[in-house]
Amino acid sequence: MDIEFEVKYGLDGVAVAISSISCVDGEKGKLVYRGFEIEDLIQNSNFEETAYLIWFGSLPNENELDFLISMLSKKRELPNQIIEMMKLFPKNSHPMEVLRSVVSMLGMYSKKENSTFENAINLTAKIPTIIAYWYRIRNDLPLIKPKESLKHSENFLYMMFGKIPEHFNLFDKALILHEEQGMNASTFASTVTASTLSDIYSIITTAIGTLKGPLHGGANEKVLKMFDEIGSIENVEFYINNLIEKKEKIMGFGHRIYKTYDPRAKILKNWIKEIFINNNIKYFEIALKVEEIVVNKFKDKKIYPNVDFYSGILYNYFGIPKEFFTPIFAMARIVGWTAHAMEYCKNNRIFRPKAIYNGPKNLKYKEVKGVE
Amino acid sequence: MDIEFEVKYGLDGVAVAISSISCVDGEKGKLVYRGFEIEDLIQNSNFEETAYLIWFGSLPNENELDFLISMLSKKRELPNQIIEMMKLFPKNSHPMEVLRSVVSMLGMYSKKENSTFENAINLTAKIPTIIAYWYRIRNDLPLIKPKESLKHSENFLYMMFGKIPEHFNLFDKALILHEEQGMNASTFASTVTASTLSDIYSIITTAIGTLKGPLHGGANEKVLKMFDEIGSIENVEFYINNLIEKKEKIMGFGHRIYKTYDPRAKILKNWIKEIFINNNIKYFEIALKVEEIVVNKFKDKKIYPNVDFYSGILYNYFGIPKEFFTPIFAMARIVGWTAHAMEYCKNNRIFRPKAIYNGPKNLKYKEVKGVE
Repeated sequence: MDIEFEVKYGLDGVAVAISSISCVDGEKGKLVYRGFEIEDLIQNSNFEETAYLIWFGSLPNENELDFLISMLSKKRELPNQIIEMMKLFPKNSHPMEVLRSVVSMLGMYSKKENSTFENAINLTAKIPTIIAYWYRIRNDLPLIKPKESLKHSENFLYMMFGKIPEHFNLFDKALILHEEQGMNASTFASTVTASTLSDIYSIITTAIGTLKGPLHGGANEKVLKMFDEIGSIENVEFYINNLIEKKEKIMGFGHRIYKTYDPRAKILKNWIKEIFINNNIKYFEIALKVEEIVVNKFKDKKIYPNVDFYSGILYNYFGIPKEFFTPIFAMARIVGWTAHAMEYCKNNRIFRPKAIYNGPKNLKYKEVKGVE
Repeated sequence: MDIEFEVKYGLDGVAVAISSISCVDGEKGKLVYRGFEIEDLIQNSNFEETAYLIWFGSLPNENELDFLISMLSKKRELPNQIIEMMKLFPKNSHPMEVLRSVVSMLGMYSKKENSTFENAINLTAKIPTIIAYWYRIRNDLPLIKPKESLKHSENFLYMMFGKIPEHFNLFDKALILHEEQGMNASTFASTVTASTLSDIYSIITTAIGTLKGPLHGGANEKVLKMFDEIGSIENVEFYINNLIEKKEKIMGFGHRIYKTYDPRAKILKNWIKEIFINNNIKYFEIALKVEEIVVNKFKDKKIYPNVDFYSGILYNYFGIPKEFFTPIFAMARIVGWTAHAMEYCKNNRIFRPKAIYNGPKNLKYKEVKGVE
């Protein structure tokens, strides 16, 4: 059909906005936030400072950074009623369902006179608490209240486990890697929500629900499920060849934008390889073997591991269960979501694309139903 | 800047899918569901039958319709725990915040093995209950349980007010008008969510949060607020001219697609005019005067009332408070949302447009921070 050619499936290559937030060079494998390469930020910065950069467009001076850190650390606690309701949630609820619901509910507790930015800070501060509280509640553990003196990442790991693990710095850097990635599906969906001038709680609820899908943020959890199914290094070849034969998706590979090695996957892989050289990191050997087979098999198609392929191995090392991987993605990406929503609304136009109609025409109710 | 021309702001005129669900002819002012003109369906059909048509593509026979009616009427009640939590919600929460949150929470109570269609039915059945329960809870009224023997619209009005009002049929027909409208912002945002293969609760949560915006479904509530502010017929001219002078948006006018009178607004206006000829319908005189001034003023721009301009007057007649207008829009539009999500996923491609980068380049952390 001719009309097929008119349709921009998935909006591949269609520009929907001008943005000064980040730049992804898919050919060269480069990810740049506000002019800074991701490798530079990983090396020198931290979650809060990078968040400031993404929100405001430039690196903060000392006072500015202190101010942001203090705002974030004071907003962590949830309203008591929300904690009570979370205790009533079915224990088998997926953490992404809980996160989506609690973020939506927080809208009911927000001050209507707050600015979008204040609400963005509020949600960025509270998402780690939602995740950690749900982890504790579903495991029948007592809640650990947030500690103002701790940094964002430290405090999250503390609320999860009651202590700050070795190498927690890598967790902070993993958050930097996930803070922003241009007009991916969750950022785009939430931008569409923002374009009706809806509120920030709607915008972030949309983003979380969209990230949840296995073709997007849900992939990191699925990667670890795959490693679990493979079980041991001897089974890799059979398992992967079987997927390939059945033309099933291999989780954690390929990316719409990166046509070379995902720079974030490269960084994560190096951390796991170098820093944990003396430890036996669960899943790492299996992962390397899976990568070898898949990359070889699809050499011509330039399919490489993406960020979701290696992030779970790191999170698992910290003792985080796999159902919590996608929420951690959200905990970082909220910075990009809110930055894009605020940027788009400065020059807003509501999204209203078209669908090409190929259905029936000129039907009449009484003729079809045979009544008079 | 040259790049401005590349950007498809609001995706105007860009086709994102092929669809056989509905067709909007903006020039002629025609809205067609699956080949049937909206005027034909209003005349002859009802909410449930039109829902079947939109979901399955053809009108049901008697058995098929009975089956759908029975499925819908059996799924109305909410889990007890959700009702208990709703009673804990802050009483001043907007019904759209409540609807967004409860739909998200229902995901935690759904059977994971259910098909998307079963979940769509489940949500379509439960949304009226969420709305009516919230109306009763926030007004400290005892809940009225759903009655299986009543049709969808009847049952909703019964749960709201404990009786079925005169002319309730018009309420049912107003739902038909709102069931579907192509790739508007809420349908599109939820399609983006669906494209990551996320679940139906995420999809509909996205849709509700997007509909909430005042540039979209939130407009019907704002229209009545405007009528309230105007207060009486003598103030109309001054009020509207003042808005025009300040170049502020006049709620309930204009539409991205309709460049003539919105057929839904025409139908609603006629109902109010003809059927209630012997009653004094609140706001109607004011509305007619506002329309006259605005249409005259913007003759060249072809700006006419849209569906949101007249729907609130009808809902207000039934005693529904204005904060509940947008939820009622959602109660009807869920049919279109779920139909589009299911149709898109048959031939899915994840949405990943691009943003054109116009930010800084080649910055180095240490140079900017002045550290070594």
